[in-house]
Amino acid sequence: MSDATTTDLYEVTMALSYLHEGMTQPATFSCFVRELPPQRGFLIAAGAETVLDFLSGFTVGHADVEVFAEALQRPARDLAPLLGMRFTGEVRAVPEGRVVLAGEPLLEITAPLPQAQLVESFVLNHLTHQTAIASKCIRCVLAARGRSVVDFSLRRTHGTAAALQVARLGAMTGFAGTSNVAAAHAEDLPAVGTMAHSYIEAFEDEEAAFTAFALCHPGPVTLLVDTYDTESGVAAAARVLNGLGRGDGSAIRLDSGDLAELAVRARSILDNAGLPQVRIVASGGLDECAVHDLARAGAPIDVYAVGTRVGVSADAPSLDSAYKLVAYDGRPVMKLSSAKMTAPGRKQVFRRPGCHDVIGLADEPLPAGSTPLLETLMSGGVRSTPRGRLADARRRVVADVAELPATARYIRSPHPVRPRVSKRLSALTDRVRRRIEREVLAPFGSHS
Amino acid sequence: MSDATTTDLYEVTMALSYLHEGMTQPATFSCFVRELPPQRGFLIAAGAETVLDFLSGFTVGHADVEVFAEALQRPARDLAPLLGMRFTGEVRAVPEGRVVLAGEPLLEITAPLPQAQLVESFVLNHLTHQTAIASKCIRCVLAARGRSVVDFSLRRTHGTAAALQVARLGAMTGFAGTSNVAAAHAEDLPAVGTMAHSYIEAFEDEEAAFTAFALCHPGPVTLLVDTYDTESGVAAAARVLNGLGRGDGSAIRLDSGDLAELAVRARSILDNAGLPQVRIVASGGLDECAVHDLARAGAPIDVYAVGTRVGVSADAPSLDSAYKLVAYDGRPVMKLSSAKMTAPGRKQVFRRPGCHDVIGLADEPLPAGSTPLLETLMSGGVRSTPRGRLADARRRVVADVAELPATARYIRSPHPVRPRVSKRLSALTDRVRRRIEREVLAPFGSHS
Repeated sequence: MSDATTTDLYEVTMALSYLHEGMTQPATFSCFVRELPPQRGFLIAAGAETVLDFLSGFTVGHADVEVFAEALQRPARDLAPLLGMRFTGEVRAVPEGRVVLAGEPLLEITAPLPQAQLVESFVLNHLTHQTAIASKCIRCVLAARGRSVVDFSLRRTHGTAAALQVARLGAMTGFAGTSNVAAAHAEDLPAVGTMAHSYIEAFEDEEAAFTAFALCHPGPVTLLVDTYDTESGVAAAARVLNGLGRGDGSAIRLDSGDLAELAVRARSILDNAGLPQVRIVASGGLDECAVHDLARAGAPIDVYAVGTRVGVSADAPSLDSAYKLVAYDGRPVMKLSSAKMTAPGRKQVFRRPGCHDVIGLADEPLPAGSTPLLETLMSGGVRSTPRGRLADARRRVVADVAELPATARYIRSPHPVRPRVSKRLSALTDRVRRRIEREVLAPFGSHS
Repeated sequence: MSDATTTDLYEVTMALSYLHEGMTQPATFSCFVRELPPQRGFLIAAGAETVLDFLSGFTVGHADVEVFAEALQRPARDLAPLLGMRFTGEVRAVPEGRVVLAGEPLLEITAPLPQAQLVESFVLNHLTHQTAIASKCIRCVLAARGRSVVDFSLRRTHGTAAALQVARLGAMTGFAGTSNVAAAHAEDLPAVGTMAHSYIEAFEDEEAAFTAFALCHPGPVTLLVDTYDTESGVAAAARVLNGLGRGDGSAIRLDSGDLAELAVRARSILDNAGLPQVRIVASGGLDECAVHDLARAGAPIDVYAVGTRVGVSADAPSLDSAYKLVAYDGRPVMKLSSAKMTAPGRKQVFRRPGCHDVIGLADEPLPAGSTPLLETLMSGGVRSTPRGRLADARRRVVADVAELPATARYIRSPHPVRPRVSKRLSALTDRVRRRIEREVLAPFGSHS
């Protein structure tokens, strides 16, 4: 059984029905975030690489058909039309690390309708999760005002697979390292770490614990100083670091209490002990707002270790994302009901400097001074470009975020940047809406 | 490289230091949730099975040592003491599906200190995530007042591995099915599904779409009726179901608008069409609060499909969980600093009917009329009992939740049940606190 079974059942029933009806013409689905969460001024696109890996390997095998049949309580032969299906379509997407705004397509898939349908759940899941996390992480980096941010989230993400993404996306947005060893290996990131309170408790006293740790680990060490009394802990750390001549590259970590005040006192104790080079790491329930307050207050903290709240994007653990059919067999389509109207047609985003974006149609001429945001990353089911490198995505983050209005980067109450809609897309939307109202709704009488 | 590398770097440095110091005596770590999130009156224990699977297979192999060495930028030979480490300890845990309260151990590990340390990150991650999700899911079941709840969360969980857990934990707490095909297969759950708005849009009109779907799928079908105009959609669904004689077992789905009002109108249209047996499924951003309001209002909804908000436990995407050293080499230990005091010693929870719990010491005699909550699930690194079955966990949920005070089950502003602490545990806590203050803190002067 393959990743093809990681799907909502309705994708299977719809795909089967499309095959049954001979509806295998190309369809375009657009994946976008309708509205930003309250504390987001912009998003960082992420997840396209996972999606491309999935689509590259997508095949419905015998075991998958058996699983589909079991789910539908039908004989496997009824599912035979799905057997052997591969993804042969096109993917146009915003490369990972770029700034995206509400309503802008993160990714568009054009493929025979049953294929484009069957991949929906997986595609939407990973684009949503990864974009949510990257968009949370960048806020920590901005809040830290040039000080380092590292990822300590492994212990409380939604499973350990999610933690791997948090480490990767943290690095993409500018984190300096991760505590997650498997992620550091997988993504070639600096691994960082200190010690736990339990380590200190396992020794007779703090000084014994610090000494044992330093003797076992010959490089720079980070000593946790708040197990009993923070100032006493800093003094003990200073004695051990001085005694062993191990100040260079080393650090102390504060994990509780009034971090701003304790950092000032710790800095003073370290400086007075002749250890101005020893850095201060702060942790303990930090998110971008806490980092913002500490950095603004001028707390002498060198490294912010963020964990749970960032790893689960606590204030916005999901995004209002959608995967919507926008064209079928050359005909633009749209959803009209309730508040969830979607604009029809294959799209492109035209960006002028300053993140002045216009959402238009893919076949519109490029407006002067604009660059297109979506790139063709897969054609005929095969990647058109090499696998994206994290370093390139990180460069895109830096370049794009620098272009944003300062108000969009605010940590508290950011002003979201709003894209405009091109004249052609507006006109097409009006035309399709009128057609639907005429052809589909009119027979049932008027509606609001 | 194995799951052993799914660890925070500090677990590795601490484990290595413990081996270096010869500190390999048995240590007990206790995993518990300090405080409940605001909208929780209790928790449902989950994650122990994943933890037992992990510990059963835990081995530090050559590839793992290479990864550790890379993370520490040290030669692999320095990490040799970790090579071949297996988990040989004891696990006492609350079986999955039982009600647990703030401060009660979910799981305690007793093992040689380096082992107990090295497994921390993985253990804490899965216990926290799964307990958070199970505790969210049970609220949906309670809110639905006997109507069915199903899981539609796959598209927006934190990765697709997380979705598998949501489906499993939903079923554990009483969900009737999941849309997630892979999860339905893995956990032997009913797979459920309908169709998307895009399916309707791909046809000339709703009636054509419904007809095509019903012809392709001979069993009961669920028709999505709100793509254009909901009442027209219900009428079209009724015509198709009647025309094909397919009312039995079938349903319609409402996914937008005022669900309470639309359900009443849909029920009336269906009843008037001679289809009283056709059920109504509601979906669209539902969580336990929305379900509660609809069920209380008497909306004629038969099935609540919950998705994103439940799959990410949106109001409480993580728990304030901890993995704390409580004993080492026969000596009870505790953390004293700041607000995060932990009680020392290996523990047991004594439960009297009505979830009147007392947190005591593992070696206390069982108080009359009480049953112990933690069971020995692993000894000497080997499971003491067969792998827990989901059906058994589900029975435990039903039995335990029925014992809770009604106020703990409130959907809005529940009153958390608070466990008491046994006299012996209180006395031990006082004794250990005094010892720490005397031995460790006194040399540095008094502190608050």
